[in-house]
Amino acid sequence: MSGGRIRLGMVGGGLEAFIGGVHRMAARIDGHFELVAGALSSTPERAQASGAALGLPRVYDDFRQMAIREARRKDGIEAVAIVTPNHVHYQAAREFLKRGIHVICDKPLTSTLADARKMVQAVERSEALFILTHNYTGTPMVRHAREMVAGGEIGKVRVVQVEYPQDWLTVAQEAKQAVWRTDPLRSGAGGSTGDIGTHAYHLACFITGLEAEELAADLQTFVSGRELDDNAHVLLRFRGGARGMLWSSQVAPGNENALRIRVFGETGGLEWAQEDPNVLWHMPFGAPHRRITRGSAAAGEASARVSRVPPGHPEGYLEAFATIYSEAARAIRAHGRGEAPGPEVVFPTVSDGLKGVEFVDACVRSSRRNAAWVKL
Amino acid sequence: MSGGRIRLGMVGGGLEAFIGGVHRMAARIDGHFELVAGALSSTPERAQASGAALGLPRVYDDFRQMAIREARRKDGIEAVAIVTPNHVHYQAAREFLKRGIHVICDKPLTSTLADARKMVQAVERSEALFILTHNYTGTPMVRHAREMVAGGEIGKVRVVQVEYPQDWLTVAQEAKQAVWRTDPLRSGAGGSTGDIGTHAYHLACFITGLEAEELAADLQTFVSGRELDDNAHVLLRFRGGARGMLWSSQVAPGNENALRIRVFGETGGLEWAQEDPNVLWHMPFGAPHRRITRGSAAAGEASARVSRVPPGHPEGYLEAFATIYSEAARAIRAHGRGEAPGPEVVFPTVSDGLKGVEFVDACVRSSRRNAAWVKL
Amino acid sequence: MSGGRIRLGMVGGGLEAFIGGVHRMAARIDGHFELVAGALSSTPERAQASGAALGLPRVYDDFRQMAIREARRKDGIEAVAIVTPNHVHYQAAREFLKRGIHVICDKPLTSTLADARKMVQAVERSEALFILTHNYTGTPMVRHAREMVAGGEIGKVRVVQVEYPQDWLTVAQEAKQAVWRTDPLRSGAGGSTGDIGTHAYHLACFITGLEAEELAADLQTFVSGRELDDNAHVLLRFRGGARGMLWSSQVAPGNENALRIRVFGETGGLEWAQEDPNVLWHMPFGAPHRRITRGSAAAGEASARVSRVPPGHPEGYLEAFATIYSEAARAIRAHGRGEAPGPEVVFPTVSDGLKGVEFVDACVRSSRRNAAWVKL
Amino acid sequence: MSGGRIRLGMVGGGLEAFIGGVHRMAARIDGHFELVAGALSSTPERAQASGAALGLPRVYDDFRQMAIREARRKDGIEAVAIVTPNHVHYQAAREFLKRGIHVICDKPLTSTLADARKMVQAVERSEALFILTHNYTGTPMVRHAREMVAGGEIGKVRVVQVEYPQDWLTVAQEAKQAVWRTDPLRSGAGGSTGDIGTHAYHLACFITGLEAEELAADLQTFVSGRELDDNAHVLLRFRGGARGMLWSSQVAPGNENALRIRVFGETGGLEWAQEDPNVLWHMPFGAPHRRITRGSAAAGEASARVSRVPPGHPEGYLEAFATIYSEAARAIRAHGRGEAPGPEVVFPTVSDGLKGVEFVDACVRSSRRNAAWVKL
Repeated sequence: MSGGRIRLGMVGGGLEAFIGGVHRMAARIDGHFELVAGALSSTPERAQASGAALGLPRVYDDFRQMAIREARRKDGIEAVAIVTPNHVHYQAAREFLKRGIHVICDKPLTSTLADARKMVQAVERSEALFILTHNYTGTPMVRHAREMVAGGEIGKVRVVQVEYPQDWLTVAQEAKQAVWRTDPLRSGAGGSTGDIGTHAYHLACFITGLEAEELAADLQTFVSGRELDDNAHVLLRFRGGARGMLWSSQVAPGNENALRIRVFGETGGLEWAQEDPNVLWHMPFGAPHRRITRGSAAAGEASARVSRVPPGHPEGYLEAFATIYSEAARAIRAHGRGEAPGPEVVFPTVSDGLKGVEFVDACVRSSRRNAAWVKL
Repeated sequence: MSGGRIRLGMVGGGLEAFIGGVHRMAARIDGHFELVAGALSSTPERAQASGAALGLPRVYDDFRQMAIREARRKDGIEAVAIVTPNHVHYQAAREFLKRGIHVICDKPLTSTLADARKMVQAVERSEALFILTHNYTGTPMVRHAREMVAGGEIGKVRVVQVEYPQDWLTVAQEAKQAVWRTDPLRSGAGGSTGDIGTHAYHLACFITGLEAEELAADLQTFVSGRELDDNAHVLLRFRGGARGMLWSSQVAPGNENALRIRVFGETGGLEWAQEDPNVLWHMPFGAPHRRITRGSAAAGEASARVSRVPPGHPEGYLEAFATIYSEAARAIRAHGRGEAPGPEVVFPTVSDGLKGVEFVDACVRSSRRNAAWVKL
Repeated sequence: MSGGRIRLGMVGGGLEAFIGGVHRMAARIDGHFELVAGALSSTPERAQASGAALGLPRVYDDFRQMAIREARRKDGIEAVAIVTPNHVHYQAAREFLKRGIHVICDKPLTSTLADARKMVQAVERSEALFILTHNYTGTPMVRHAREMVAGGEIGKVRVVQVEYPQDWLTVAQEAKQAVWRTDPLRSGAGGSTGDIGTHAYHLACFITGLEAEELAADLQTFVSGRELDDNAHVLLRFRGGARGMLWSSQVAPGNENALRIRVFGETGGLEWAQEDPNVLWHMPFGAPHRRITRGSAAAGEASARVSRVPPGHPEGYLEAFATIYSEAARAIRAHGRGEAPGPEVVFPTVSDGLKGVEFVDACVRSSRRNAAWVKL
Repeated sequence: MSGGRIRLGMVGGGLEAFIGGVHRMAARIDGHFELVAGALSSTPERAQASGAALGLPRVYDDFRQMAIREARRKDGIEAVAIVTPNHVHYQAAREFLKRGIHVICDKPLTSTLADARKMVQAVERSEALFILTHNYTGTPMVRHAREMVAGGEIGKVRVVQVEYPQDWLTVAQEAKQAVWRTDPLRSGAGGSTGDIGTHAYHLACFITGLEAEELAADLQTFVSGRELDDNAHVLLRFRGGARGMLWSSQVAPGNENALRIRVFGETGGLEWAQEDPNVLWHMPFGAPHRRITRGSAAAGEASARVSRVPPGHPEGYLEAFATIYSEAARAIRAHGRGEAPGPEVVFPTVSDGLKGVEFVDACVRSSRRNAAWVKL
């Protein structure tokens, strides 16, 4: 059946990595992709070993080699997933973009603002598509929240409270996942702000349809010896008058991946939490809270089109991630037919990625100026 | 990469079906299977249409034809998923079993006790493996609950409260899913007892390691015109003295798939709910409740081996289902090497399936005798 | 201000007791009562010591003495709270009833069915009022649940699931509270059934407006040496066709006072839990769950009239208990004016108390006959 | 029994008021006080009507008259509860303080910083005690949280997230409660910051034992025509390096009184929510969440001494409020014996009140300077 599938390559995601395996499962769930090539590690030896372990048909020593050779093959990859540490995103992506190979890239977009701007240009110059895996926006109830706000169901938005606390960096960590994420050269200028704050920020903008105008950030590094922020308190002012608070933390014991958003408008509120993703709470002013569940009659069209199983059977993190892949597949197939995908097909773009990197940059600049307001 | 995958066929699961799609996603998630053949509907026309829609390499008019032809091919299917209505399970399974093709069969095992016994014999006579998809036992925290009980962490079990309420049959339904499930010829003698009570019963036995000795059941049919029970109240007596209550219902408004189990022993309790599957509550007597999360340090080995993503990133229904498929894959591969799988590989067997059908039969017999005690 | 208060006496409730202090706080909260006399213990010495410790104006050696002397005083007590172990309820109550002193009596009504019937007669012969403190029916959201069922908001009731698990008797206990509650002579024939099962049973009847017709009970005593049931599994058949399950347990680790009821009708469901008493869940079929909170606009009249503080400020156990006292005060004052209280004044009566003792008796009889059906 | 009770007067709390009734119930629950005098409204007519409606023995036209006359009586009030709008607190309190009558005053301390400082002086010059009803610190599990932090059970505190959202001012309101609370002359310079932000701020300081050093506040007024903030986003820096976020809002639909605090230290976290007050979550780093319940073995001494009923029987808002009154009673009685109360007796003082008014003042000043940092 692989004939019908989109041929996918992968850069990064070797055996010790976390997010590579997630991308591979996400790519498999809906059956739109077949992973056929990879340059999975930064050294040729480990790249070969990882590729062999996965049974990949074509294994490359490095991404540039893969881009060149795959571009030449008739049955070469049509898309590539880039799942390396952040500082490699741009240099890897451009090799594929310039050869017309679609890029599915992990977040944040890049480790530097300069790279982010170059990435935007690279995408603009390319015929290929660029999809950023802000995976939480693939969640059905996040889609429904966005549809409700857009439909005026909570009135004009006034207040946005969004947070993404974790606890895994409460103490100094030696694990591979921790080491690169706390290294400014590989991760970028933001610690918690870059790794999870960008998810929170994107989610807030995605659901509300608002853009932040300025922010004031008080970043902290609680664990001694760490170079990047591990806790961030951010005030947000959105265009049009809405205000927000964003909290990201990697030192909040008891929090695993507790991304949560609350949006309050003139006539109602919404609440969604990543760890209970199948439920969207709607709080119409003056009436009981409504518990809207994925797959139910009340959950709406935007949610139904990205749901897989009946209500009460929880879909989770991987399914939301898979939805980004499936949206990518729809866009890629439409592109192959010389068409644009329908307006219902939604995925984060390079522009969203740039905004995320600008958010990190603004946080760092604001914090250095004692949490002064900084324009976005 | 499909070369490394187990070649899978499917019986049932055409376009209008629900559970077929679930099996297909479950088979894909961990990448152990490749669906290459199908007899997806009960009429040749729809079977062909469904197969074409899925892009299956080999489409058959009916399961017998598929079994015969695939058994002859060198690259024929190694395993088949049977996802038809219950009354077809046995007749389909035996065609593959007798040809040495492994069977992964949806629950309940069969629509009749006679068929269930014949299924056991067919499995005993076959060299092939038989896996029943009581999918909830693939959930990491269910595995951990079982490990805790077995390890004596709640002491000798005294009381088991298990329930599986739904609401979709609160009113008479015309949908395909409802029609066959409420038809004794296709579903069997049990309505809610067969469709979801068997899940609850299996889960209780799986976690506690206990066997029920006798039961008393008060079955009801609340929706007029319906032939099978849509609500069941069952008292359970387990060997060794533990007692239980089991409630299954399809007429409980507000319940989607609210399977929930509570087990109380001499020194502690456990609670798990299908709709919040990443959490296992441990209630040690005299101490605070402990919220054990999938993927966390406290979650134990049996859970960790079937987890995919870090704590706080919810795995759901499809992942648990995929674990049954992956356990099947491990068993099938070991079988191919002439070995038994390791003791850590756990999946529901034909024997569990027989117990489920016996449970339904006992419920019906007890209820007809005004909820008298019936041996199991 | 005590002039305006109803003069109250108390029988039982000495220093070591639990429920006496609860009654005293409940009587104070709304300011309708002033405790002025007591016979607080079963021995004169402790009765005097307990009365002195509370600073009671008039302390008696025993309840009979108190009844006689108070009845003679112009400023004698108008009502008495009976908070002794169960076996004393009847003998104490009759002394006050026959002297025209209103009785507020703890549950269960009596320790034996014979006493319960005599209590009914004593109340019928008396001019005085009799109020039984099934305190949970004083909870605002329980009142609202009852109002919703009566108003047809969930349609005809089909299924009732009610449970009251505790864990304090998981092991053998020596505390005073445990000793009399596990002693058949003082507690009656029921253990968990009498102490908490009666609460659950009354609550189910109160909310649904239904009467049970027959029951089948499987009682267990898990802790060796204990004489009474510490766990009970009960099937219920209500007049009109509704069916129910009732579970009471004192050996379920992790449960403090986890009384919970779920009622399912033809068009919706309701759920209420004692440990989260300010919330009533309404599950209309086919629509999102509605979280109705005490004091909110949606909570209705029957709830509002027994609420004290704004929504979001939790009222608890003592406030619900106080509502029974305040309803008693309204009835007592109306009685003083020669009137009946308005129809909105609701409290459990001696008739409810008799039903509770009949429930315990039926459970015990059924269980002795291997959970045969027994009429109520 | 009133002979043993502390004679209490009340200023404010007439028939239309909310908080007066709360104080009266709180004063009754534990039986330490008897309300014997009142000047309940700002006009003589309504003061008389309200006093009569409550059946008060002595009703005054105004608080000054009450202070003078009660001070002269042998059986005059020993303490007075001041429950007027904020701008009256100081002028009323000083009349009693200077006559040696203890003051129990609602929060915030005063409507202006000038008045707050004068209140501190008035208390210093008086022999009488001053108790501020930051009622949430009377909650058993808040006491336990404080004990845990002080005992080092979560290590050095790093991050404090506290919030108090409500929704009742989502639209313009005409109710008496709303009118004075949104009037700067009566309420003070803070809207949500004064009415509920002070609660949140005090709670954070109470639990952590920390003092804030500076804050940055972004206050908003979303409802047009309103003069005071109805939403506030505040960043906090505590002495010693901890950082915090505080959110108060009266325009967050779906929030009734959703005060919630989370404290994260080097080795664990704590979480408590006002609407579920009997539970304290303890999140030790690297181990399962522990659900500590009021009254349970794990809940500790500081909590046990202010608990009334067994675990699982919820205590609520009124009980916490009553604890402040009972602590006041203990202090008043010790004072009457010429002693200091024991160190276990804890209640908010005039100094806490001053800090609250300073907090409001700092929020307003910071916000006017575009959320610049302001010292506290």
